[in-house]
Amino acid sequence: MGTGEVRIIPIRGIPEAQPGDSVAALVLTGLQASGLTGEPGDVLVVTQKLVSKAEGRLVRLADIEPSPIAEAYAARWERDPRQIELVLRESVRIVRMDRGLIIAETHHGFVCANAGVDLSNVTPGYAALLPLDPDRSAATIRRELCELAGWEPAVIVSDTFGRAWRNGIVNVAIGVAGLRPLRDYRGQHDSYGNELRVTVIAVADELAAAAELVMGKTEGCPAAIIRGFVYEPGEGTARELIMPPERDLFR
Amino acid sequence: MGTGEVRIIPIRGIPEAQPGDSVAALVLTGLQASGLTGEPGDVLVVTQKLVSKAEGRLVRLADIEPSPIAEAYAARWERDPRQIELVLRESVRIVRMDRGLIIAETHHGFVCANAGVDLSNVTPGYAALLPLDPDRSAATIRRELCELAGWEPAVIVSDTFGRAWRNGIVNVAIGVAGLRPLRDYRGQHDSYGNELRVTVIAVADELAAAAELVMGKTEGCPAAIIRGFVYEPGEGTARELIMPPERDLFR
Repeated sequence: MGTGEVRIIPIRGIPEAQPGDSVAALVLTGLQASGLTGEPGDVLVVTQKLVSKAEGRLVRLADIEPSPIAEAYAARWERDPRQIELVLRESVRIVRMDRGLIIAETHHGFVCANAGVDLSNVTPGYAALLPLDPDRSAATIRRELCELAGWEPAVIVSDTFGRAWRNGIVNVAIGVAGLRPLRDYRGQHDSYGNELRVTVIAVADELAAAAELVMGKTEGCPAAIIRGFVYEPGEGTARELIMPPERDLFR
Repeated sequence: MGTGEVRIIPIRGIPEAQPGDSVAALVLTGLQASGLTGEPGDVLVVTQKLVSKAEGRLVRLADIEPSPIAEAYAARWERDPRQIELVLRESVRIVRMDRGLIIAETHHGFVCANAGVDLSNVTPGYAALLPLDPDRSAATIRRELCELAGWEPAVIVSDTFGRAWRNGIVNVAIGVAGLRPLRDYRGQHDSYGNELRVTVIAVADELAAAAELVMGKTEGCPAAIIRGFVYEPGEGTARELIMPPERDLFR
């Protein structure tokens, strides 16, 4: 570990989250079940699904009355009109709506498929919505971990997003606490003396992507520790990871 | 390591690449300098910059005659007209060209800023172009590592790309050998019995992102090993990571 190595450690044995649960307490249960101990400098990555369940962000599809546009779009593309309705309700703007897909801007400002509304890894008949404020969720997890166990990792709440132009989805950070999500090399020089003029790395997204390698989709591992990565501590939020409208060529 | 842990190990001490060098041989020199040994099941991630240098994909800016459009765009946005000219030459289509930026489709099919033409981490006065065929580059590295050292890792050639709607750049896979770049969960079921209908994870991009956490931009560490990740072996290529035009809502 003196070599600059980074470790990605799955946390298994996290109990199924119920509304009102403390994510921090669930993670600590998993740590104990996995025989792990939190260490200073750790980054904890937790899936959106775990957070949404604990925050009661599950909706029973049977309770949803679809609007005419949701009915029409669902019928045209063989989708569930109640899910389409939820997508519209979670959105502030539709970016693309074609071929059965909806790419939407959420009230947080994220642009993603289905505004983050997801029917997988939840009880059948329910849909999971994104946390209302994933940055606040991350901050709460961090604070409670400190209170409960004296462990204060940087915390990332992650979700898998599609990307324009690229196939497949990847895990990204939708909530951040305790680390700077962007590493800004601008003004620094490379080993040739060239000034790095445009290099800002989305380290929080890279950490989320790394964590997904151990979390999987079917294995019930909703959290991971990244150990050995020297992050910049700070009061960053995932909102910094959203392209500012004035610089966005693809709104 | 029996816990499903994944390790990201930087390879330091890789010599500066000269045109005609074997990337595999350079990596093996770095492994030895770092006191590391390749193991079965490893994934090797190598930066585009290292590969481009070894493949002679550096261009002297003084040799480039800018076209009128390159001159005009460079003057308007205070950029180097010779770099703009190289970007146009590396492109088959311009996706967006505004505010000094050029988002282009390269001849490989990648959509990225500046068609991958990059002035950082190269000798001042030169620009690095993407490898002509990064999948072939990855396959060559893999084959030569096997011939030279009996080590046959999966190989990813990586580059940092911007993303629509998100701030900051992240490392992605532009060349792949020996692993399936997409993990397809479609048809599988989650722990609730829901069929996973749309879940295809771009694992090669997540591996590239993970590797960037130890590579950095100023530290001269152009390669990393990812150890402990159980990938699907196969004849995958990074072309699978490009959204097929018929499914692309953002061409």
